[in-house]
Amino acid sequence: MSCFQVRTDLALEARESIGKAEEELRGISVEEYDKEEIQVHITRVVISSKNGAKAMNKPMGNYITLEAPAMQEADEDYHREISEELARQIKSILPGADEEQSILVVGLGNRDVTADALGPGVVDNLFVTRHIVREYGKAAYSKERMNMVSGIVPGVMAATGMEAAEIVKGVVEQTKPDLILVVDALAARSTKRLNRTIQVTDTGIQPGSGVGNHRNALTRDNLGVPVIAVGVPTVVDAATIVVDAIEKLQKELPEKDRLFGTDSIRTMSELNNMYVTGKNIDEIVKRLSFTISEALNIAFEL
Amino acid sequence: MSCFQVRTDLALEARESIGKAEEELRGISVEEYDKEEIQVHITRVVISSKNGAKAMNKPMGNYITLEAPAMQEADEDYHREISEELARQIKSILPGADEEQSILVVGLGNRDVTADALGPGVVDNLFVTRHIVREYGKAAYSKERMNMVSGIVPGVMAATGMEAAEIVKGVVEQTKPDLILVVDALAARSTKRLNRTIQVTDTGIQPGSGVGNHRNALTRDNLGVPVIAVGVPTVVDAATIVVDAIEKLQKELPEKDRLFGTDSIRTMSELNNMYVTGKNIDEIVKRLSFTISEALNIAFEL
Amino acid sequence: MSCFQVRTDLALEARESIGKAEEELRGISVEEYDKEEIQVHITRVVISSKNGAKAMNKPMGNYITLEAPAMQEADEDYHREISEELARQIKSILPGADEEQSILVVGLGNRDVTADALGPGVVDNLFVTRHIVREYGKAAYSKERMNMVSGIVPGVMAATGMEAAEIVKGVVEQTKPDLILVVDALAARSTKRLNRTIQVTDTGIQPGSGVGNHRNALTRDNLGVPVIAVGVPTVVDAATIVVDAIEKLQKELPEKDRLFGTDSIRTMSELNNMYVTGKNIDEIVKRLSFTISEALNIAFEL
Amino acid sequence: MSCFQVRTDLALEARESIGKAEEELRGISVEEYDKEEIQVHITRVVISSKNGAKAMNKPMGNYITLEAPAMQEADEDYHREISEELARQIKSILPGADEEQSILVVGLGNRDVTADALGPGVVDNLFVTRHIVREYGKAAYSKERMNMVSGIVPGVMAATGMEAAEIVKGVVEQTKPDLILVVDALAARSTKRLNRTIQVTDTGIQPGSGVGNHRNALTRDNLGVPVIAVGVPTVVDAATIVVDAIEKLQKELPEKDRLFGTDSIRTMSELNNMYVTGKNIDEIVKRLSFTISEALNIAFEL
Repeated sequence: MSCFQVRTDLALEARESIGKAEEELRGISVEEYDKEEIQVHITRVVISSKNGAKAMNKPMGNYITLEAPAMQEADEDYHREISEELARQIKSILPGADEEQSILVVGLGNRDVTADALGPGVVDNLFVTRHIVREYGKAAYSKERMNMVSGIVPGVMAATGMEAAEIVKGVVEQTKPDLILVVDALAARSTKRLNRTIQVTDTGIQPGSGVGNHRNALTRDNLGVPVIAVGVPTVVDAATIVVDAIEKLQKELPEKDRLFGTDSIRTMSELNNMYVTGKNIDEIVKRLSFTISEALNIAFEL
Repeated sequence: MSCFQVRTDLALEARESIGKAEEELRGISVEEYDKEEIQVHITRVVISSKNGAKAMNKPMGNYITLEAPAMQEADEDYHREISEELARQIKSILPGADEEQSILVVGLGNRDVTADALGPGVVDNLFVTRHIVREYGKAAYSKERMNMVSGIVPGVMAATGMEAAEIVKGVVEQTKPDLILVVDALAARSTKRLNRTIQVTDTGIQPGSGVGNHRNALTRDNLGVPVIAVGVPTVVDAATIVVDAIEKLQKELPEKDRLFGTDSIRTMSELNNMYVTGKNIDEIVKRLSFTISEALNIAFEL
Repeated sequence: MSCFQVRTDLALEARESIGKAEEELRGISVEEYDKEEIQVHITRVVISSKNGAKAMNKPMGNYITLEAPAMQEADEDYHREISEELARQIKSILPGADEEQSILVVGLGNRDVTADALGPGVVDNLFVTRHIVREYGKAAYSKERMNMVSGIVPGVMAATGMEAAEIVKGVVEQTKPDLILVVDALAARSTKRLNRTIQVTDTGIQPGSGVGNHRNALTRDNLGVPVIAVGVPTVVDAATIVVDAIEKLQKELPEKDRLFGTDSIRTMSELNNMYVTGKNIDEIVKRLSFTISEALNIAFEL
Repeated sequence: MSCFQVRTDLALEARESIGKAEEELRGISVEEYDKEEIQVHITRVVISSKNGAKAMNKPMGNYITLEAPAMQEADEDYHREISEELARQIKSILPGADEEQSILVVGLGNRDVTADALGPGVVDNLFVTRHIVREYGKAAYSKERMNMVSGIVPGVMAATGMEAAEIVKGVVEQTKPDLILVVDALAARSTKRLNRTIQVTDTGIQPGSGVGNHRNALTRDNLGVPVIAVGVPTVVDAATIVVDAIEKLQKELPEKDRLFGTDSIRTMSELNNMYVTGKNIDEIVKRLSFTISEALNIAFEL
């Protein structure tokens, strides 16, 4: 048995190592369905016990995944449909979705590393309203009800010398939003999930997730208000790729020939702090940033 | 008499409308000298009374200006000399310059508007150390004494929905720096000052300064720790250009022919929210960002 | 009489100094109408004689202007309507608009200077097809007829050491497009025209136009194939602002009091290589880049 | 035996699969030495026969490699020393290095993908002189002898619809440089070579090299003038990582247990168009761009 924890930010992938029977036993409920008209497969995982959280290595809460292979392509109308569906799913777990509130959107990640620039890209395209509503009132938008939306890109620790969580916590204490929505690039276990899967969760962001090292949690516990996280896997940990490839090959061999333990592979592969990503990642991240920011703009409209 | 306040962020220019005799009377002391070996003219203005502050329309405190016409050019060795002189001047008004302390550098302005990108550019090139010192200690740098330097680019209100001052205040309360150093692009009154003048002051940044609208003060009063501001004028307010050009022309006429009042000119010129800048502003801001970040790196070394 | 040529890239503004009667006399025909449903005012100027070209200081050819004040705002649906109208206007002077052809889009200007980044921004968002059609055929798009669209951002001379025209000419000779479409930021005479006016012309781009110094013509004469130019004024020459402000003031005085000649104003104003632009120019250029690239994508679809 | 060609752009790595004896036989000469004072290991490989070219899968010519592990770090003085050594090595194979000539620097790669942005970054920092020398003469630099340096970033085919080679060829025919120097991000076979190895060669750039798909050769044959290429490996092909990891593990087993053929591994790994890179690649590429552009500035000075 291995003590190596293969890294994935997707509840969907964490599930794969657990059997159906065990899921029920451990208080993990799973619902799956297709939205055929937009070619999206939706999975809703609810982890409702500590036992389940331990088995999944994910905190208790709701995890919604939209899988949309066509999302990698450049069809603008299709992306609008995805934005609308994503908005619906976000609203389904957004506390106070139909009430006026103040929402802070946090774009985690590194603007200067293409595969990690999803969060900053979403905030760049966000429709922010807080400053206008505060200065001119809702009348400025000819609306009776308006959310106050603000956005921040805290940057990465190597550039700021500070944890993203320190910056966000400070901003939260000053501006008192009712709710935080964090966007981040995620790490998947398998390259087949890259750039076509969106995960929405009400558990926030845990230490060590994402491409960069966004330490310290962005969670309700830490920040004092609910934290919804939206993410798309854009990279796979390089060591994971090697481990998985070898295990896949070994599986086809008789037991006695399975020569390599996961840990020994990992130790030998010298791939710390390396990740795998695709060649057209610039176009993909640019497009996903629009799709997600559009979803937020729709979800935040009253 | 005009009620129109011509806008300048430079104490040097604010001085120009005040006579020598009046300066003394009002508690404004001025010292000027040349550093010939590096072709820099240095002016140190101290405003030590409220009366002087009112006359100058600037808060009480120290204002140091380095004028270096050659700074616009691409001579790398020269820029290093300027960085060294600037570091010396900064240290001359930096509280606790020789003690270990924690310093937060704030890069005001808009990364996406070339003439307003000085602050973000300086933070991009800054040597940040806080996260390393906190995690590995000073040993990581083989030093016995180290400042802890952090940096933030708060962004502009149109993009974040928040005042820069709200964000900085939150970060200050979370990370408790001993000192803040703010960098910003300034507005000059005259195009001759553009891109060749650096102002250092211990009075922080006041509302309405700079290219963008960075409202709410970044001052010791507001943030609770000393605030040093470093700025370079990169733009002139467009209305000011017109007013000044006309007044310059009128000055050559006999009194009775001076037909236009400042206010009427301004009213007619429809130049609100417009500014004047140079065509090669991209190269200049890029170079100045390096020169200033290098100066900060030198000033913060113990 | 002044020998100073006030600079404008807009035929619309060049017209303003010419009387109605003189227009007819000189072979300048003008047609104007409103598209009320989309709040656009369209002006079509045809210069059909050398005499007219001289009076207008613009080459013979067609000039179409769309004035849409609401274009400065962030209404996405409205921008789509503008894109569609602009596509129609472009097609009205595009040679071979309904035939399959190869089109090279040239994005002039400087990516690093916000007000000059319109051309690069349009090419960034363009739907390029040439490489796909050449490698996989039209089948790749499930279409029977496809234009082959390519795009280039030649950069500015200060960065490349070459004229944009040299680079474009080389690319044209290698890739043999049937048609060139150039996009550039323009200079207006009046700030009221900024960011709300789109000019389309079949006369290409002349030396000295635009924000930067894109010397050497991009014209049919020089490049050997038809050149359509699309531009939006994003700046006003700083000297022009001053000259115009003073002349406007003087106009209200009796003749004898008009004391300043245009040339003397210009000489005194020391504003060479300076320009005036607005504070939110980053958002505006970003939005205009999308609107124009969308118009090109529509116009180039068969 | 495998028909799978493990991909590397480094002659140094291509050599590793060839024995000493075979090298001599095939006309491959190798010289290695250390420059201890700057901690650089230099390898000069000369392929002087077709036979050698085939064995190495690299064209005949000179390949110089500088290995400098410390190059990954942020020591500015050290980088200047590397720039100076690199300049010396470039001059050693630069035709007409001491004569006045016209040099076109080509920055291959994709500005928007961090690991592929080395070429564009170098051109951004290059000292271009061609336009000044042509307009004002060498006097503008107070020099008696000056090279005319120009630079171009052709962009990637997905963005332009054109091969980089088409664009460069067109520019070469228009501007007639005596020499081309191409800069590109390379792919290494091993992660240990990343970001610390610089290769200089007089064989130009071959199809399929680098991160992106820069098809069509940039070679003397194709462009008509000598082509020097300078590159740094910033990525490893993802499939190569997996193949190499498995082969390394298998090597420790008795022959009979070596169960996986290279081709089967590769087939199963589904890693086409994926690459591996490091997490702090943004800082590294930024720094390397400066180091190389500085080396070119030194090498081109007469």
